[in-house]
Amino acid sequence: MSLVIVGSVALDTIETPRGKVVDALGGSAVYASLSASYFGPTAIVGVVGNDFPTSGIELLKSHNVNLDGLETQAGQTFRWSGKYLDWNRAETFSTDLNVFADFSPRLPESCLCCRSLLLANIHPRLQLQVLDQIEKYEWVACDTMNYWITLCPDELTEVMRRVDIVFINEQEIRQYTGLDNVFAAAEKIISLGVKAVVVKRGEYGSVTVLEDDLFFAPAYPVQDLKDPTGAGDCFAGGFMSYMATQPALNKGAIRNAVRFGTVLAALDVAAFSVEGIINLDYSDLQKKVNQLRNWA
Amino acid sequence: MSLVIVGSVALDTIETPRGKVVDALGGSAVYASLSASYFGPTAIVGVVGNDFPTSGIELLKSHNVNLDGLETQAGQTFRWSGKYLDWNRAETFSTDLNVFADFSPRLPESCLCCRSLLLANIHPRLQLQVLDQIEKYEWVACDTMNYWITLCPDELTEVMRRVDIVFINEQEIRQYTGLDNVFAAAEKIISLGVKAVVVKRGEYGSVTVLEDDLFFAPAYPVQDLKDPTGAGDCFAGGFMSYMATQPALNKGAIRNAVRFGTVLAALDVAAFSVEGIINLDYSDLQKKVNQLRNWA
Repeated sequence: MSLVIVGSVALDTIETPRGKVVDALGGSAVYASLSASYFGPTAIVGVVGNDFPTSGIELLKSHNVNLDGLETQAGQTFRWSGKYLDWNRAETFSTDLNVFADFSPRLPESCLCCRSLLLANIHPRLQLQVLDQIEKYEWVACDTMNYWITLCPDELTEVMRRVDIVFINEQEIRQYTGLDNVFAAAEKIISLGVKAVVVKRGEYGSVTVLEDDLFFAPAYPVQDLKDPTGAGDCFAGGFMSYMATQPALNKGAIRNAVRFGTVLAALDVAAFSVEGIINLDYSDLQKKVNQLRNWA
Repeated sequence: MSLVIVGSVALDTIETPRGKVVDALGGSAVYASLSASYFGPTAIVGVVGNDFPTSGIELLKSHNVNLDGLETQAGQTFRWSGKYLDWNRAETFSTDLNVFADFSPRLPESCLCCRSLLLANIHPRLQLQVLDQIEKYEWVACDTMNYWITLCPDELTEVMRRVDIVFINEQEIRQYTGLDNVFAAAEKIISLGVKAVVVKRGEYGSVTVLEDDLFFAPAYPVQDLKDPTGAGDCFAGGFMSYMATQPALNKGAIRNAVRFGTVLAALDVAAFSVEGIINLDYSDLQKKVNQLRNWA
């Protein structure tokens, strides 16, 4: 497998200043795998309830997402409901973990060896469980969120010690390290043995910190923002799937990976749920990546 | 003359989370001209009171800043006093216009012809007065602030119709155009006939919008921020002075101009008052510009 993604599969009810969707396809593994699907074979490891719509499964299959690791459990699928007050801040109405409450990721045979492994935003304990199972991979990345930073910073540090790439946003990296300067904060994570820290800055793009390099990428301009849900997952999925096509984790590869992730995140936020990241042409992604390169 | 700068010359009393200075050299024309001095002959047009310290004059002269257009009037120099609550927001304690209250810019003979003209942040009516006097120039730029946008938007629009380059920050361009999307907002200013709109984004750098191009530049990383005063003026001064060395206002020239402006702004904020932008080596500026290019 090129890329294995461990994360959530969810049904989201989302309100933004531009509209509302009910029980729409969502979850970090879904956003990340659809974005990843443009670069090579991608598998997800997660869990859904028996209420999960067939259309969701069909959509993932139509993008050649391998579902060997997607369990179906009796009960309801993980549901999140919230409203974006502005484009950077959501108010959560409800988080119903449902079958996700007892999720214990188990990699199927087909996922034990892969080039890229993405530990999407789940409990660090589960991320560690995955790392204990996997047999062979080239590079592994983790995502996280403020919730885990507050709840279990030590387990998160343990995860970071075992990954090559960390995706984290500005507020999170400041919270995690206690440092206001994002460059100093990223250095602190690099000192754990991480090779690349990708600090996401929302509408301002990202800065990727490596041991001996920096890479600033602007966000791809979005004319009409509709729903920010999943942007970070699309970024990480596109990034890691592109990396799986590369022989080495070097500067050039990482820069292009950031650019592809950036473009996918922009396409995601221009539509509700996963509408912006399905049925895309690779050539259009490449064209947008070239624009981004020319604009910097 | 390569560059003529019309703006304020001031004595600032500034408090930031990192310290305090009293009656320190400041004002848009001072910051901009010191930054500009590394690229070619620069002149300032402004006014000071007879209390203005000789050391200030000597410093400008040591940077070869032409002072033919700097009037000395009986009375006190323009004084600003404030405190930065955070790095983006200052609380003003007092603004004493003093001799600046009756400032009516008059270009001396030596300043009537220049390659670059920078109308720094002063009343748009005064900016128009300067435009009526100047005889020959290649390109002219204006800076502005929220105060003028609120007070006299029509006069500001009249200025913009007559300049090639507009320096403006994100909040200001949103306020001026009433548009939330900065790209759409910049297009609106481009439609007035402006060739390049440089939208400043603080710690996130800048985006320059041209009729058929975009250019994103990150901020040059600052380890230890001390005093943000003058950052925009240093950016504009460095930008316009670099442009004065260029044969045409094309993509490549504008990109390098942005990079030099960015580096000078970063050097400025790393020290109080003008301490960070004096006695620099051009080769060090060039080295930092190259870093910035390599990081994007």
